[in-house]
Amino acid sequence: MLEVEKNGEIHLLRLQRPPVNALNPELIGAFRQQLESSINDGAGGIIITGREGLFSAGLDVPALLQLDRDGMSRFWQEFFGLLECLARSPIPTVAALSGHSPAGGTVISLYCDYRVMAAGDYKLGLNEVQVGLVVPQVIQNTLARLIGPHAAERHMVTGDMISADKALGLGMVDELAEADQVVAAATRWLERHLALPRQAMLETRRLARGNLTEMFDDASAFGVERFVNLWFAEHTQQALHAMVARLGKKKG
Amino acid sequence: MLEVEKNGEIHLLRLQRPPVNALNPELIGAFRQQLESSINDGAGGIIITGREGLFSAGLDVPALLQLDRDGMSRFWQEFFGLLECLARSPIPTVAALSGHSPAGGTVISLYCDYRVMAAGDYKLGLNEVQVGLVVPQVIQNTLARLIGPHAAERHMVTGDMISADKALGLGMVDELAEADQVVAAATRWLERHLALPRQAMLETRRLARGNLTEMFDDASAFGVERFVNLWFAEHTQQALHAMVARLGKKKG
Amino acid sequence: MLEVEKNGEIHLLRLQRPPVNALNPELIGAFRQQLESSINDGAGGIIITGREGLFSAGLDVPALLQLDRDGMSRFWQEFFGLLECLARSPIPTVAALSGHSPAGGTVISLYCDYRVMAAGDYKLGLNEVQVGLVVPQVIQNTLARLIGPHAAERHMVTGDMISADKALGLGMVDELAEADQVVAAATRWLERHLALPRQAMLETRRLARGNLTEMFDDASAFGVERFVNLWFAEHTQQALHAMVARLGKKKG
Repeated sequence: MLEVEKNGEIHLLRLQRPPVNALNPELIGAFRQQLESSINDGAGGIIITGREGLFSAGLDVPALLQLDRDGMSRFWQEFFGLLECLARSPIPTVAALSGHSPAGGTVISLYCDYRVMAAGDYKLGLNEVQVGLVVPQVIQNTLARLIGPHAAERHMVTGDMISADKALGLGMVDELAEADQVVAAATRWLERHLALPRQAMLETRRLARGNLTEMFDDASAFGVERFVNLWFAEHTQQALHAMVARLGKKKG
Repeated sequence: MLEVEKNGEIHLLRLQRPPVNALNPELIGAFRQQLESSINDGAGGIIITGREGLFSAGLDVPALLQLDRDGMSRFWQEFFGLLECLARSPIPTVAALSGHSPAGGTVISLYCDYRVMAAGDYKLGLNEVQVGLVVPQVIQNTLARLIGPHAAERHMVTGDMISADKALGLGMVDELAEADQVVAAATRWLERHLALPRQAMLETRRLARGNLTEMFDDASAFGVERFVNLWFAEHTQQALHAMVARLGKKKG
Repeated sequence: MLEVEKNGEIHLLRLQRPPVNALNPELIGAFRQQLESSINDGAGGIIITGREGLFSAGLDVPALLQLDRDGMSRFWQEFFGLLECLARSPIPTVAALSGHSPAGGTVISLYCDYRVMAAGDYKLGLNEVQVGLVVPQVIQNTLARLIGPHAAERHMVTGDMISADKALGLGMVDELAEADQVVAAATRWLERHLALPRQAMLETRRLARGNLTEMFDDASAFGVERFVNLWFAEHTQQALHAMVARLGKKKG
């Protein structure tokens, strides 16, 4: 469910869990493990991508609805663990958003150094509210760091999916490229950075991201228990089941 | 001095203290009381507006100049209390800035979720410095959260009134509409948000506004005593009396 | 090496250390001393400039390479002391960036109230990484306050010199003027501010800059020792000597 391609120092991680790269516990586990082994193997930089037209549809809600409280609590901890791993990565990471990227797909990209988004009719956004979910505090703080607290509030509370163009204007992505060129653009960005005096680049980057990594210094800030409570609240379960029913009809 | 109009879940509060909706202790008291009762009565959202062409001329300086130290100290506490009430509102609030809105008029709008400003020849801004007043820290922090610390510093230290267009560019307002359409635009915005899964919207909003509400967690941060000292300093009193004299001549 | 010109309340400090206004210990000492005496002499505002076409080439690396650990440690403390003096200035300061202004030249301007940059083919930027140096935390925080954490991270980690136009777009400078007009533009800005009710302007400014000055409240935050360690690390010394060799060839 995760393809790895090594081009010199650059490791390309391609999400490959058909049909929509939905994030379930297994994919999240594999993703984190690969990040750690790429870092330990001396990669210079990491690109994360999906398939042309779709980066990831976000959390695998049908699968998560099967989990009990303990399972859900473990899942959130692992998801936050993946985000922490990206946030603390000692080497640059780029999200090559190869297409649609709602909710969890967008969330992952927020922890990378740089985001290249597929131009055209593709959308992304923290649309959790639209499907009855709350955006957790640590993710809110990360978006506020990227685009400012007020723009972040307006985007998350409304929960609209937004176009690539609008995302660029807001600062939620850094660059647009054709869907089949996002990996090439991400590679160019990484190569340019890997050609810089390495220690100075890495240490300047580490200091600059201090206000990102410190969000993870206190794991209680994830509010896992509060989040699990909300997940199992009647109104949330109703909204999630309704969404899954809609998705089922679409496919049918 | 405050008209209330209930349209389903939406409560419209219209400042109505002729001639210029100047904020005196009575209006501030009535405003805060109405906010609290709207919230307690189960309103879904609140719109605050003035009359076409004028939202509010800000603090009622001639009235405030009659107050002694104790009276002024109470007034500041009540004014900050109103701002706190807006900041902590558990439901969305929109400022429908129906026209001119200097100083205190602008300040109130900063604590709402969203600001619709009358397009055209209307102005707003934190012009306190121009009339010899200091912008208090908590208000400074709120503007910095909205438009960034440097833009906030430049705006407040200079104290210029700015056009609706410039305010939109700076991010001090979120949307422009014709003066007779600001309430309609505010209503559309609120209706769109009230149609979202309610608990998810409200909880995501509560988390997003945590860095706003926490400014009020320590009441000593208002610096009321420092502010009252400045108010009664000779240079401030001179500047305020000079301003009142100018206003008197204009009317005459 | 520092020319002072007093025009009423406004003191103009012109860096004049040929050929490129490189910042060595003597210039930094003279600069700070002049700032302090201008402030003590009752100046209303201060303009800092260079010569037409060049503000400052930044740190005098060839001179600094002669220093031993103690000397370098003292130098960093004095450089941070200069920045602190600018940050804490009780009166407004303007950087009139009269031309090229890489690295240390840009750094100084970040602590002023306002930056006027020479339009045209002049560049500025925190290009430390490009020459093998790390951007210290306090300087990173200052740039993040000015242009936001993500834009600051991208600029500093890449270390590109940028054009005046791009700097204006990013918010790294506030205004452009022809190279021979930057002092005139800085003067106009200062005069406009000095015409405001003085105490209200100064106190509002003091509060607005509280999040800048507080960066200096804990001197250990400068990380002088860490910085000196990096300076004497083999890879840094190699990069710096290589840069000096390149500069020598250019002149030759």
